[in-house]
Amino acid sequence: MDLQQELKHWATRVEHNLGLYLVRETCIEPRLIDAMRYALLSGGKRVRPALVYMSCKLCGGTPEQADRAAAAIEAIHSYSLVHDDLPAMDDDELRRGRPTCHIAFDEATAILAGDALQCFAFELLSNAGADIEPGRALQLVSILARASGAHGMVMGQAFDLAHVGDRLTLSQLQAMHTFKTGRLITASVMLGASAAGCNDSELLKALQRYGDAIGLAFQVKDDLLDIEGDTATLGKPQGSDQAQNKPTYPSLLGIDGARSKLSQLHAEALDALKPFGIAASALANLAQYIVTRDH
Amino acid sequence: MDLQQELKHWATRVEHNLGLYLVRETCIEPRLIDAMRYALLSGGKRVRPALVYMSCKLCGGTPEQADRAAAAIEAIHSYSLVHDDLPAMDDDELRRGRPTCHIAFDEATAILAGDALQCFAFELLSNAGADIEPGRALQLVSILARASGAHGMVMGQAFDLAHVGDRLTLSQLQAMHTFKTGRLITASVMLGASAAGCNDSELLKALQRYGDAIGLAFQVKDDLLDIEGDTATLGKPQGSDQAQNKPTYPSLLGIDGARSKLSQLHAEALDALKPFGIAASALANLAQYIVTRDH
Repeated sequence: MDLQQELKHWATRVEHNLGLYLVRETCIEPRLIDAMRYALLSGGKRVRPALVYMSCKLCGGTPEQADRAAAAIEAIHSYSLVHDDLPAMDDDELRRGRPTCHIAFDEATAILAGDALQCFAFELLSNAGADIEPGRALQLVSILARASGAHGMVMGQAFDLAHVGDRLTLSQLQAMHTFKTGRLITASVMLGASAAGCNDSELLKALQRYGDAIGLAFQVKDDLLDIEGDTATLGKPQGSDQAQNKPTYPSLLGIDGARSKLSQLHAEALDALKPFGIAASALANLAQYIVTRDH
Repeated sequence: MDLQQELKHWATRVEHNLGLYLVRETCIEPRLIDAMRYALLSGGKRVRPALVYMSCKLCGGTPEQADRAAAAIEAIHSYSLVHDDLPAMDDDELRRGRPTCHIAFDEATAILAGDALQCFAFELLSNAGADIEPGRALQLVSILARASGAHGMVMGQAFDLAHVGDRLTLSQLQAMHTFKTGRLITASVMLGASAAGCNDSELLKALQRYGDAIGLAFQVKDDLLDIEGDTATLGKPQGSDQAQNKPTYPSLLGIDGARSKLSQLHAEALDALKPFGIAASALANLAQYIVTRDH
């Protein structure tokens, strides 16, 4: 399987599972579930679940062991998008070419659907079933909670909103992205390893280094695409960061500096995978994809 | 200890713990933590944590075993209040005599603080430490998640918002309250029992029956206080439910009918405690307090 086929394979699997897990029956307010499903099942590349599956496989685990963690990380990611799009936050009306949740439903429903999606993620992990032993499942809860909350993703979002229009230093920009998007990407890799039962601290450290590197690379590439990309391919107006005066890697490092940063992070990710040898080729291909994608 | 002393004792304990657990240091956006602490540490009777401690003690557990579950349930309750108060939801500017979180801070911060508080609850349970074995801690996550999410509290809130101004049947009203507030109250009792390691299905069933009864009794009493209570004692305008045309037990059953429902639920709660005998006197006193309180 090449990377695109593999991404498609895991995306299909996690979407199928999400549809099964999120039951609409016997519920006094089905519209809430509809809004959750609308947010969850709206496409997207499902990079985070793919990372869970790939990392789990790399550590000798089965797809079944990764299923709930893959669904849970996507539920957290989806809830964060629903809340980020709200009028009081980024106030976006479109997401992946469709009306955002609060436009398609209403603001109160979007807030509640986001709340319920976050809860759903932890509920999934707490019912890991026979494939994962309880101590391991509890570790999944811990990894996901630490990456998502007040010392993770939500903190990054709060920092971002508090600094709209401010000029950030490079270390501030890096800290913001590390929290806002990086923690969840690293958590995807760690969830997969943990679901597989990996206890080797050297390998876990290597996977964490890989996750941290591709998380930041993803953001640097996003910033570069905003300048170099094509509006039609991007699905959002090219140059919108600059127009909104958002702090970006190119604005702080110049375009060449940002490109060099991207190469450096790519090399770091590949170097981190060395202990795994050829077995890590899927993760290596994913790193390659992140730095070369055109949207 | 009489009940008021006991409530005060557990409230002091959970507040002390919450202050310790929610660390402000080494954080890039301390205002988020400030908003979380503002919402969490704003007083209130802390009935849910008290239920966790009392139920844990009744099942032979230690306060240490109940600490994290007590803090977690209060974090979930606090997050739900912060989000319920938002302009797109109930649009309240005051809570317990203080500005609501989005007034004291801002709307985006209130959304994020609520999100982070929910996550914090699950993080607390996932780090249960030496007092609780992992399988048991995972069960706490499961109980809390099922009670809080799309098939629990959030569902009840969604139903409530969808039916503002509608005339509800008694069974709809009861279902709404069962989800919106009841599930979390029953979960408090079940968390305490589970944290203590209780495996006796008869006792667990009895505690669930007790929790369900006091959860509904709490709401019936709230509705009655809105008609019979004194504005100064209530801390909110007497008659505000009627003025807002909210569906209530008295509006569906009449005042006498609602009082009789309250007595019936009180009797049910006491009956459920019978298997525990005199050991359950604290929980019996709490049921008594719920049906006789004046605010």
